[in-house]
Amino acid sequence: MSTTPRDALRSWFLGPRAENAELLERLVTEALRDHVFWRRNYHPEDGFNIRELDKRTEGYEEAVATLTQELMGLLAELKSDVPFFSGRYKGHMAYQQTIASQVGYFAAMLYNPNNVSIEAAPVTTRLELEVARQLSRMVGYDPAASWGHLTSGGTVANFEALWMARNVLYLPVAVVGAAEELGVTLEVDRPGPGGRARLADLGLYDLLNVTSGAGLDLWQAVWQAAPARDVSEALSRHTLGTAGYQDYGRRLSAQFGDPLDDSVVLVAATAHYSWEKIVRALGIGSNQLVFVPVDPYYRLDPDALWEQLVALHRRRAPVLACVSVCGTTEESAVDRLDLVLAVRARAERELGITFQVHSDACYGGYAASVTWRKDGTRRTAAEIRATTGETWPSDDWVQSILALGGADSVTIDPHKMGYIPYPAGAILLKDRRARELVATDPPYLAPAGGTAGAGDEYLGRFIFEGSKPGAAAAAVWLSHKVLPLDERGYGYLIERTVIGARRLFRAMEGADFSPFRVVLLPEPDINIVCYVVHHPSLTSLEEINRFNERIYQAMSLGRPGDAPEYIITRTRFEAPMYDGAVDPLLEALGMTPAVWRTAGTGGLVVLRSTVMDPFLCDPPPAPDHIAGFISALRRVCDTALATRGRRRDDP
Amino acid sequence: MSTTPRDALRSWFLGPRAENAELLERLVTEALRDHVFWRRNYHPEDGFNIRELDKRTEGYEEAVATLTQELMGLLAELKSDVPFFSGRYKGHMAYQQTIASQVGYFAAMLYNPNNVSIEAAPVTTRLELEVARQLSRMVGYDPAASWGHLTSGGTVANFEALWMARNVLYLPVAVVGAAEELGVTLEVDRPGPGGRARLADLGLYDLLNVTSGAGLDLWQAVWQAAPARDVSEALSRHTLGTAGYQDYGRRLSAQFGDPLDDSVVLVAATAHYSWEKIVRALGIGSNQLVFVPVDPYYRLDPDALWEQLVALHRRRAPVLACVSVCGTTEESAVDRLDLVLAVRARAERELGITFQVHSDACYGGYAASVTWRKDGTRRTAAEIRATTGETWPSDDWVQSILALGGADSVTIDPHKMGYIPYPAGAILLKDRRARELVATDPPYLAPAGGTAGAGDEYLGRFIFEGSKPGAAAAAVWLSHKVLPLDERGYGYLIERTVIGARRLFRAMEGADFSPFRVVLLPEPDINIVCYVVHHPSLTSLEEINRFNERIYQAMSLGRPGDAPEYIITRTRFEAPMYDGAVDPLLEALGMTPAVWRTAGTGGLVVLRSTVMDPFLCDPPPAPDHIAGFISALRRVCDTALATRGRRRDDP
Repeated sequence: MSTTPRDALRSWFLGPRAENAELLERLVTEALRDHVFWRRNYHPEDGFNIRELDKRTEGYEEAVATLTQELMGLLAELKSDVPFFSGRYKGHMAYQQTIASQVGYFAAMLYNPNNVSIEAAPVTTRLELEVARQLSRMVGYDPAASWGHLTSGGTVANFEALWMARNVLYLPVAVVGAAEELGVTLEVDRPGPGGRARLADLGLYDLLNVTSGAGLDLWQAVWQAAPARDVSEALSRHTLGTAGYQDYGRRLSAQFGDPLDDSVVLVAATAHYSWEKIVRALGIGSNQLVFVPVDPYYRLDPDALWEQLVALHRRRAPVLACVSVCGTTEESAVDRLDLVLAVRARAERELGITFQVHSDACYGGYAASVTWRKDGTRRTAAEIRATTGETWPSDDWVQSILALGGADSVTIDPHKMGYIPYPAGAILLKDRRARELVATDPPYLAPAGGTAGAGDEYLGRFIFEGSKPGAAAAAVWLSHKVLPLDERGYGYLIERTVIGARRLFRAMEGADFSPFRVVLLPEPDINIVCYVVHHPSLTSLEEINRFNERIYQAMSLGRPGDAPEYIITRTRFEAPMYDGAVDPLLEALGMTPAVWRTAGTGGLVVLRSTVMDPFLCDPPPAPDHIAGFISALRRVCDTALATRGRRRDDP
Repeated sequence: MSTTPRDALRSWFLGPRAENAELLERLVTEALRDHVFWRRNYHPEDGFNIRELDKRTEGYEEAVATLTQELMGLLAELKSDVPFFSGRYKGHMAYQQTIASQVGYFAAMLYNPNNVSIEAAPVTTRLELEVARQLSRMVGYDPAASWGHLTSGGTVANFEALWMARNVLYLPVAVVGAAEELGVTLEVDRPGPGGRARLADLGLYDLLNVTSGAGLDLWQAVWQAAPARDVSEALSRHTLGTAGYQDYGRRLSAQFGDPLDDSVVLVAATAHYSWEKIVRALGIGSNQLVFVPVDPYYRLDPDALWEQLVALHRRRAPVLACVSVCGTTEESAVDRLDLVLAVRARAERELGITFQVHSDACYGGYAASVTWRKDGTRRTAAEIRATTGETWPSDDWVQSILALGGADSVTIDPHKMGYIPYPAGAILLKDRRARELVATDPPYLAPAGGTAGAGDEYLGRFIFEGSKPGAAAAAVWLSHKVLPLDERGYGYLIERTVIGARRLFRAMEGADFSPFRVVLLPEPDINIVCYVVHHPSLTSLEEINRFNERIYQAMSLGRPGDAPEYIITRTRFEAPMYDGAVDPLLEALGMTPAVWRTAGTGGLVVLRSTVMDPFLCDPPPAPDHIAGFISALRRVCDTALATRGRRRDDP
């Protein structure tokens, strides 16, 4: 690099004081005018629908007056919005967006492309697929074998991942039924001791324990063995999506006479609350959502996972998928995905069972950019540490990131650590064939010059959503061009936030809060600092919770007119999800797990400071928002203690 | 009205020739600068992270050069995008967006609000709920009893509607289980001859035929009869969402010993393809998606619906919901929802069964604005006809629109006939209590000063998606301010498109295409004109299809460099969905339904021209894109016939 990303970073955002206002205005104006003259260059021989004289009518002027007035009203209201852009905001995972993404979004929005199909978005559909390939490469997938696309966000991305996983799980069951109808004989490699077997000889439990790759191979084999139309119909007849759960369940028990337990979804106990919505909506049921305990670093515990697998195998409950998290929403913890994959390999080897692994990297996925050099090779942990000047990242952390390439699917939200405007989630599939299992053909969207389902140009066929903004794809694409997914771009940006978070962590650790005591969670895997404030006069968990809730309220914008010096947020660690993990924290607060588990306490209130601000670690003369935050927190602690029970709405 | 909307309309869009470029640029610049100075006014005593000297560094300059260069590249690429803004575009349901929505989106996007919660979007969350109330009022709901919100689009909105409906369907089953556990005795009014009964005495089929209102009353009653925590847990134990389909099915057959058929979803045969995705994903299964035949106007046939209900009742198959369409994607047909509701009333009265009615008004919902006067009262059909000068709307059409208020849920996409940028769908629930059935509590998102689930300020609790753009809400809100949902705003806008579509229809009907013949579908219910072109030399359905496919290709942007004079699109009418409805069309083409139903013909290719352009019906000196289109189509017909079979990729 001839230049340092330190200087480039100064151009990436509008800036906490809108320092780059001229730049943003120049580009926005450029994009707008460019669009204007595009319209004027399209069949300039056509006449005009809006004439200059029309603009002098009373109706026109009144309408423009209304528009201007109402916009002024909206702008006035927006002044009560949250100052995400400021170093004083240390709350949710929100910050300002890259200028590239803002301008890219705006420029494309003027064209109004709809990425449901290339016919409605010839440019931005291509950009979306390019962006998905970039993300696939970043997580370590083979871009030729994988596939991905953008979604409206992480919930839909994770929903789609589990929907795909369910189709992959039941695929061997569908194939065995179709193959029988078609008179096709197939063989399959079973994991571990099972070895190669005739598909028709397998029981239901064995069919649900075929690896995803072997299942997709079977599926391809049956397509090659008979005419496409027959295969399509036969597969459809034996597919869960066609039959529905109620009928499928009855059929399978009749066909296999096998009273299997319901298939379960294993999720890290720290997984996002949306997983519960997802399993409920999919008809899987939240009872089948099995939490895997996390360790005191809030990472999925691989030993606990193994024990659960053994127990599930004992009662012959198939595992639909295991969801590991890369960057938990509350702590930014990065699961040891390498160890999760090792557990799967062991389960295949020793138990002859398998399952799909999904990485929910909605928050943390972009951190993988830290591991890439600009020449497309990987940096070692030691090399990265040399540039961060921190003990971060550990060798294990880098191993966890490298393991992303071994997951069957990964979800990543550009609208989180990609610093892109909402809505931009992404789902990536390691094996692109899986997308065919959810394909639907809208009759009016097949592209000209190709048959329906021809391929990539026709996104709507393979995704859950329909109409969606091409502008989001343009935003991600332009941002990736300006901030490459390696040490020069996103890698540098995210490194800075991690350094900022760690400096904040250490400053809080070293600060004198007496008589208060700030009990910190372990140093974060990425950039969220969590803590609980204690005071000797607080003798019960309820009191500690109420006190921290008051701190949160004093440092948030809950009521109109609130003007906190700094803004944070909070969460609650509840049983059973945080069983075990929370013990060191409780101990430091002088509490016991038993008290915490008691119903009615509302778990443990934990304060959170997300550091998405890459400038937090800037040296003077930049503002010192670490020292500023600590002294503000100290003052708030005093007030929160003094006003205890005084406010009418004291919780 | 002191002024005519005719003049106001000229200010609503940037314009086919960007006639309002100055207006848009002024407002965009205003919004941008307003945001800039908001940032500068927030703690102006804080120092700077980006200093003027930083902007003189090589790294900064290089990064700005990259950004500018790549933006120029993006702008160059976007010039291959689709000219939706032009009167020459008559393809999909896409046009330019209102200036209000573009500026509203951009203004709010700079703030990056996330409407998952009021904490992350104090302003735009409120705007979203206001917009939902406006839409609720437009469809005839009581704004105080109903509830709604925005989604990423129609698929997610419809998905959520069916997810809600499933929860409502099984609610009495959950309540009966919970009530037994809690020792609570409840009574319920059954529809029709059933009369009032003790809940515990009802069989499974009866429980699944409690009206949605009565079911929600039961649910409220059980909450009042026991401590909240106990009720919550008891209900949860008996809920499909918790148990999942596999377990729930087994339990119900054990508990009731009732081998019920799977519950079905009745949809108009013209319903959007996404319904298949939705029932597959929800685990309902596409086999349970039962198509209700449509009449030759492509509207759901109420007699056929009745017959299906009788047959389903005979085999005791519960009906999860009936999906009626207001503005089909392919024909803009408006189902006679009033007759659908009458069929339900008859089923309750005569058969003692009931079902929820959902109106998929994603495309046509905004047309309800036509029925509203500015004083908040309704216009009669005759009054509207007096302003349109057309035979549209019929009295029946207005009855269908008035009936929207009787549907249990309605979905409407602002990003379709609301002329708002993607992503903006909406779901409206007639009974706001239903939202509680899908509530989930994220631990970190409860608002300050309130408990989780307190209410509206906390959208994430009641919706499927999580993070989502507050900018979309601002866009819809500002657009509704400038174009009210009545005769002055959207009503006028949509009227103009209907008039344009009908003039196009009549012009095509009257034009001399000989030796070709343009076979038109019936005059559209809103604004999509569909047709098939015939020529005496075309003797088979395959030939007709290939010929029309060639016309479509010559009038679309399928290949880079394509520059058609006018742009249209096409669809395929396939069996069994279009059984019966398509017969008059086939007859006019000299074909028989039997031929059409034959496998392998690929249905019937139908050309489509959506008229979202409100200027199409403008008198001279405005461009005459009706005459222009007809002569372009005539020329294309000649070429398509002459080049038959010549092009290598001729389909």
